[in-house]
Amino acid sequence: MAKKNKRFRVKASSHDAVVGEMPGSVTISKDALKPIIEIYSYNQAEVKEDKGTNISVVLDQMKACDQHTHWILIKGLGDQDLIEAIGSKLEINSLVLEDIVHTRQRPKFDEYDKYVFMTSRLLHYHKEEAIEDYQLSILVKENIVISFQETHEEYFEGVKKRLAAGKGFIRTAGPGYLAYALTDTVIDRYFDLLNKVGDSLDLLEDRLYQNPDRSIMYESQQLKRGMILLRRAVWPERDKINDMIRTESPLLTQTDKLYLRDAYDHCIQVIDLIESYKEVTASILDMYLSIISNRMNEIMKVLTIISSIFIPLTFIAGIYGMNFARLDPVTNKVMPDNLPELYQPHGYIYTLIVMLIIAVIQFVFFWRKGWFNKM
Amino acid sequence: MAKKNKRFRVKASSHDAVVGEMPGSVTISKDALKPIIEIYSYNQAEVKEDKGTNISVVLDQMKACDQHTHWILIKGLGDQDLIEAIGSKLEINSLVLEDIVHTRQRPKFDEYDKYVFMTSRLLHYHKEEAIEDYQLSILVKENIVISFQETHEEYFEGVKKRLAAGKGFIRTAGPGYLAYALTDTVIDRYFDLLNKVGDSLDLLEDRLYQNPDRSIMYESQQLKRGMILLRRAVWPERDKINDMIRTESPLLTQTDKLYLRDAYDHCIQVIDLIESYKEVTASILDMYLSIISNRMNEIMKVLTIISSIFIPLTFIAGIYGMNFARLDPVTNKVMPDNLPELYQPHGYIYTLIVMLIIAVIQFVFFWRKGWFNKM
Amino acid sequence: MAKKNKRFRVKASSHDAVVGEMPGSVTISKDALKPIIEIYSYNQAEVKEDKGTNISVVLDQMKACDQHTHWILIKGLGDQDLIEAIGSKLEINSLVLEDIVHTRQRPKFDEYDKYVFMTSRLLHYHKEEAIEDYQLSILVKENIVISFQETHEEYFEGVKKRLAAGKGFIRTAGPGYLAYALTDTVIDRYFDLLNKVGDSLDLLEDRLYQNPDRSIMYESQQLKRGMILLRRAVWPERDKINDMIRTESPLLTQTDKLYLRDAYDHCIQVIDLIESYKEVTASILDMYLSIISNRMNEIMKVLTIISSIFIPLTFIAGIYGMNFARLDPVTNKVMPDNLPELYQPHGYIYTLIVMLIIAVIQFVFFWRKGWFNKM
Amino acid sequence: MAKKNKRFRVKASSHDAVVGEMPGSVTISKDALKPIIEIYSYNQAEVKEDKGTNISVVLDQMKACDQHTHWILIKGLGDQDLIEAIGSKLEINSLVLEDIVHTRQRPKFDEYDKYVFMTSRLLHYHKEEAIEDYQLSILVKENIVISFQETHEEYFEGVKKRLAAGKGFIRTAGPGYLAYALTDTVIDRYFDLLNKVGDSLDLLEDRLYQNPDRSIMYESQQLKRGMILLRRAVWPERDKINDMIRTESPLLTQTDKLYLRDAYDHCIQVIDLIESYKEVTASILDMYLSIISNRMNEIMKVLTIISSIFIPLTFIAGIYGMNFARLDPVTNKVMPDNLPELYQPHGYIYTLIVMLIIAVIQFVFFWRKGWFNKM
Amino acid sequence: MAKKNKRFRVKASSHDAVVGEMPGSVTISKDALKPIIEIYSYNQAEVKEDKGTNISVVLDQMKACDQHTHWILIKGLGDQDLIEAIGSKLEINSLVLEDIVHTRQRPKFDEYDKYVFMTSRLLHYHKEEAIEDYQLSILVKENIVISFQETHEEYFEGVKKRLAAGKGFIRTAGPGYLAYALTDTVIDRYFDLLNKVGDSLDLLEDRLYQNPDRSIMYESQQLKRGMILLRRAVWPERDKINDMIRTESPLLTQTDKLYLRDAYDHCIQVIDLIESYKEVTASILDMYLSIISNRMNEIMKVLTIISSIFIPLTFIAGIYGMNFARLDPVTNKVMPDNLPELYQPHGYIYTLIVMLIIAVIQFVFFWRKGWFNKM
Repeated sequence: MAKKNKRFRVKASSHDAVVGEMPGSVTISKDALKPIIEIYSYNQAEVKEDKGTNISVVLDQMKACDQHTHWILIKGLGDQDLIEAIGSKLEINSLVLEDIVHTRQRPKFDEYDKYVFMTSRLLHYHKEEAIEDYQLSILVKENIVISFQETHEEYFEGVKKRLAAGKGFIRTAGPGYLAYALTDTVIDRYFDLLNKVGDSLDLLEDRLYQNPDRSIMYESQQLKRGMILLRRAVWPERDKINDMIRTESPLLTQTDKLYLRDAYDHCIQVIDLIESYKEVTASILDMYLSIISNRMNEIMKVLTIISSIFIPLTFIAGIYGMNFARLDPVTNKVMPDNLPELYQPHGYIYTLIVMLIIAVIQFVFFWRKGWFNKM
Repeated sequence: MAKKNKRFRVKASSHDAVVGEMPGSVTISKDALKPIIEIYSYNQAEVKEDKGTNISVVLDQMKACDQHTHWILIKGLGDQDLIEAIGSKLEINSLVLEDIVHTRQRPKFDEYDKYVFMTSRLLHYHKEEAIEDYQLSILVKENIVISFQETHEEYFEGVKKRLAAGKGFIRTAGPGYLAYALTDTVIDRYFDLLNKVGDSLDLLEDRLYQNPDRSIMYESQQLKRGMILLRRAVWPERDKINDMIRTESPLLTQTDKLYLRDAYDHCIQVIDLIESYKEVTASILDMYLSIISNRMNEIMKVLTIISSIFIPLTFIAGIYGMNFARLDPVTNKVMPDNLPELYQPHGYIYTLIVMLIIAVIQFVFFWRKGWFNKM
Repeated sequence: MAKKNKRFRVKASSHDAVVGEMPGSVTISKDALKPIIEIYSYNQAEVKEDKGTNISVVLDQMKACDQHTHWILIKGLGDQDLIEAIGSKLEINSLVLEDIVHTRQRPKFDEYDKYVFMTSRLLHYHKEEAIEDYQLSILVKENIVISFQETHEEYFEGVKKRLAAGKGFIRTAGPGYLAYALTDTVIDRYFDLLNKVGDSLDLLEDRLYQNPDRSIMYESQQLKRGMILLRRAVWPERDKINDMIRTESPLLTQTDKLYLRDAYDHCIQVIDLIESYKEVTASILDMYLSIISNRMNEIMKVLTIISSIFIPLTFIAGIYGMNFARLDPVTNKVMPDNLPELYQPHGYIYTLIVMLIIAVIQFVFFWRKGWFNKM
Repeated sequence: MAKKNKRFRVKASSHDAVVGEMPGSVTISKDALKPIIEIYSYNQAEVKEDKGTNISVVLDQMKACDQHTHWILIKGLGDQDLIEAIGSKLEINSLVLEDIVHTRQRPKFDEYDKYVFMTSRLLHYHKEEAIEDYQLSILVKENIVISFQETHEEYFEGVKKRLAAGKGFIRTAGPGYLAYALTDTVIDRYFDLLNKVGDSLDLLEDRLYQNPDRSIMYESQQLKRGMILLRRAVWPERDKINDMIRTESPLLTQTDKLYLRDAYDHCIQVIDLIESYKEVTASILDMYLSIISNRMNEIMKVLTIISSIFIPLTFIAGIYGMNFARLDPVTNKVMPDNLPELYQPHGYIYTLIVMLIIAVIQFVFFWRKGWFNKM
Repeated sequence: MAKKNKRFRVKASSHDAVVGEMPGSVTISKDALKPIIEIYSYNQAEVKEDKGTNISVVLDQMKACDQHTHWILIKGLGDQDLIEAIGSKLEINSLVLEDIVHTRQRPKFDEYDKYVFMTSRLLHYHKEEAIEDYQLSILVKENIVISFQETHEEYFEGVKKRLAAGKGFIRTAGPGYLAYALTDTVIDRYFDLLNKVGDSLDLLEDRLYQNPDRSIMYESQQLKRGMILLRRAVWPERDKINDMIRTESPLLTQTDKLYLRDAYDHCIQVIDLIESYKEVTASILDMYLSIISNRMNEIMKVLTIISSIFIPLTFIAGIYGMNFARLDPVTNKVMPDNLPELYQPHGYIYTLIVMLIIAVIQFVFFWRKGWFNKM
């Protein structure tokens, strides 16, 4: 169980800067992975793929071939020089660079003179048992989109395929649409996660009705924790997309905004679902607690019925187990006739009958109180 | 019970698109039913009904006879060609087509240059034991209203009758009013559902007072689940209608908006009722839990009264059941006079009297504590 | 109890129209009472009272005597012809007529070109044991105020008296002020109801401290139900009055609005009180549950103290009640000296002393644990 | 206890008017105290104090000496003529007069052409055991401030001292500042009350950790009740002060508003504190309930340990207390050798040892279950 | 435990002024520490540090050397003359001076003609076991920043180092940026605190799964208390920073506001985290309560199983321990054959077998009820 409760830890270190550190400084965590760089340069006619080239060269080349849109996909942030090179080549504010490497930002959309910057939370299951929470930063400038992600994992296969296939107008639609496509992929993953949460809730509920045990409690709490994470990601994501829709930056066209409105609707759906699931989780908890109480009642009823019937009977047996006697003054013998019932003919039978009557009366009493019904 | 808890499942798959799928693609689920098409062309004078015609033909014809309003009722969405044909004939944005076939949209109102699009949630009981949740999409353009629904079920009999009878100004009021009439029918169904929920709550409450058992818990949770579904449908429905009232699209006239204000009031009433029912459900839960606790108290009181009275008495009986004795040094016989009370004349009677006194004292003690009152 | 829980039923049928019925149709429920009509025509100088006249005649006459303000009080809605006659004579929109006869409207204020329309909820105790919830509709046009109520009950005695006495400027202030005066009477009744709720809560609380029993739970739930009803009436009432204050209709003068602001304050007070009472009710429930738990503790302590003291003693008595013995090989007699304590001189006394010591130790143990204190 | 629960009664009669009474009528409650009147006329140079003069005279005089600001302090409202005289002399709307004497108004700020009117709630402890809730009404007109309070109690000693001492610019700052100073005193009293509530909560919490008993429950509910009262006073007070800051009435100067902003901050602080205390109260309740449950566990553990150990042992003793025997067919004597263990040499010792082993095993079982730890 | 619950006391005395005291008076608490003064005068080229100089001299000098920005760091507020000297030299409103010394202000930003004033809450752990809550006031005027703090503690080491090192543009950025840097340091400390709270919650949760005891309850309440403090600090802090961003005061430049937007984001993150931790705390409480209930069930099951098995068996043993007998009329001897089973050959064995069967049946009954499973 100890392992399980590590699952959805809500991290406090949302702001991993050192206290008093200079704002705008690009200090990269030591655990950050070495970056893998992929570059996709495309226009309506073609897609050129380029892996592992020196990025400075690429950034210089870009200015030459303005007809292409360039998507630079950076997986892993563990190279301060790279980040700073991009910063100086593209003239990016140092606060933006800081936000790229301090990977606990809230989703947000920041608009600058010549570029826009946005972050999202990438949530996904790790080995089916833990939710991991990484940052995706997207920088959009003229004909360049740079996406920064913390891990080497492949998130954007779908986008790459559409680029390669030339389906839809992704190849003609410019950098704003690409930024939308990446963001939309992130939100689709939230639905993915929610589907898993929903399935888990269904399973929990089935177990609740059939075979409730303590782990239901633990697991529903885990799911709740997961939903807290998800909510912290999606609420600001919604606001971010709203900011993107309302921006006047020329980097996002009217068509892009039409699609963003669709993404906005999806965010609202995610939020709706989280709220619904929260209520479902709460009602599972209520059910579980009432089931515990009911079990207690069941247990107590068994104890009470058996004790109430047999304790008085045992007392009666105790009465006739007493040794009251009389010392016969003549024979100096013990004469047990001081407890006269013992010498009644059929006294034993009568006593058993009395005991039976008492037991039956109690039984009827409990029956009429409905204690033999399921509660 | 396992069956019952399937009733009002809150579905996670509100967004059933494949992750990374291209936005705006019309991918129809394999389970989608084959469409049945009904066309009603009407003006003040007449209503022409047309079933099963090829829709392309119809759409071409429409342009010819501008005096009529055409209502195309499409039941079942399982025909990609049909949807795409409508899309291309009427010049509908592919995002709208996607929303029509991805049937887990939130109710919304989208306004385009030449048409408006809206969705609602159709909720209804399935065989009196499950709430089903389908999508109704309505597309309004010039003199055409197309309604898309997932099932073959007949929802709009009332509207058809009014069309046929020519009652009210439905025949003269144009496509906006027809869209209103369809939406109003959807909201009327919510009242229907709420009436059933209300009746179930009344029944539950009666059972709570008369014969509370565990199923009350389960069923109130089911009703709560149903209300979550309903709330998720009606809140955005209200916003949608508000958007319709505030739109400047010429497709919705001032008169239509007067009626929409009425529908808006009905949405508010539904929301009010849901909130009230939620509180009623919560109070049923509170009552149930307090009843369980009270039962526990009842059970414990029975156990405590009987145990407290008889355990000490049994101890006393045990005392006089002990075999303390004296070996007579002379006769080498066992002389039981080491436990002198046993040989008191009337010792037995005295003991019984003492026992009775103890029992009476305890009885009075419990009586004065009020344990024989109902709590 | 079954009777009591019928008290404050929250009705689902807020919208009693048939599903699919044409909006704007005046379909009157069969249970509706036959209308009683009273007409008060007044100006500064005089008040003319007129009962039971044919209303069409009256409406025609009105146009003749413009100097008077006419208040038509219609008690009971069971006459479709009457409603429709008023509708056609005064040129009222059919949606308004529908709202008058479908008597589950939320309080609202609707403004039309030549008239305004408003509804309120009339709540009152029925035979001191049930809250009834009726609709009051008020139609204001030029110099006419028509009030529609569902029952024959007399609600507006105070207004009539002030009209008759000519106190205040009611006779000079026009139809808007009359509409205000009727609305104010409705809100005064809410205070009345709240006073009763408050008194009931006080009584409940006193019983909670003195003699808590299960009915407290039931009754507090009933009061909660009553407050749900009241809240559903007064929140929209507040919005309605706010709409009246902000309207630009000439039917409501600046002076009327000054008085409406006063009514608005009263609505806020009612809302404040309901919220306060809700918290009081919640705390009564908390108290009750903790009292149940405390009682359980009391009961368990009694059981535990008595069992813990007497069960070990009974065991000791049982030990010395055992029949261990030795068959004397010589005499072939049963020699009970195999349980040697039994033949200790004073063994019985010693045993009793040991028992007493054990009991005292336990007693002290429980005492020091504070089990004899009230918890 | 019955006395205590009278403490912070939330009064329902916030609106003590008779149902149907004419709005704007000055009907004074019979319990109202006879008014005591104090008049302070001050300018930069001097303060004239005047007690018990006929107020009409004063109001006439005022017009003569315009250089002074006049503060008329009316303690007790039981003189209808006085109120009406003020109303007619100063030309006050009858709704304002009604609000002065119906002393259950919500705090509010009403602006009229030539004067402004405001009310506050005066809360204070009565004999350290009940919170009393009175109304303070302040009427500001030109150079006159009239404060109306229900009781004879002295609330404004501080203001009077500052007036007398001429400290600050109270003597030069005009009637708006005086109104502010009175209001500020009222808010300072809320802090006073909150300090007492805070101290009580601290005490309750200490008792909770050291010696929890039932009264904690009662007293925390009382504090909660007190906070409900306070919240009902301070929320509208905040709105009122905000209205005062935003008013364009010349009676409140820019400097006055600077000070009012300070008072506004204080209101927010009071609200913050109430919310914090509410959470503290809720957590005290949670703690108390968990302590009750823990106690129950403790009690049940004692019972279970003792019963589980001794009941089986008593059974064993019972076994060997049975009288199974054999009638020797030869001697016709009772031969008890039918229960052979009884005649084992050392049978008694063996039995005791078995009993000890059983007890030890159970003891170890309970030990390992952690039942001897504090939970 | 008594010590621990002193930890995070929510102080009521947020407003420590005497009731009725004149607003705007600078009354310093007797406990206030003697001030330590540090002055940093810097421009792009140099930083001059000056400790302990007479502040009047400094303030006079400042006007001479306008090229420098002066940061006056005042640690300890226990010198009324100092505060008043600053007030008169810099022409500060007395309400501001009052806010500096009454150190329970809510965070706020006040804008005056020639200066701006802001307060924050400095929260930090005291000896790892209590949260202390002090005020930081910052006054910004032209080229002067004065920070007032209650304690002698060193909070701004980081800022000083950056000043000394000349890193970033802190030396060129003017007084607004310095005010930002101080505020940012305060917010960084909130993250610090939250990290500690988060770690404590993790520890609590681990203990909850492994070894739940009563202290979990206490400690989670303490953490909740800490979060109340934190929330009361950070919510108004957010509003304050928002006010700073929207101000039109020339003392805050566009660049400053860019950085303030960053600080604003951090505030939102802190708020998000607090809300998440609140939910985590609530779920720990839920878990704990369900664990208590489960334990109770465990305890009751043990009691019930053992009692239910042995009480009936003891009764049977009691039956055969009765002394029913017959007085033989001939020999006048006690003939025990009145209880015939006792003389059955193998009666004892049969009885034991019956007892065993009863025990086994009960065991199976409990087994099938699942009482031996963990719940």
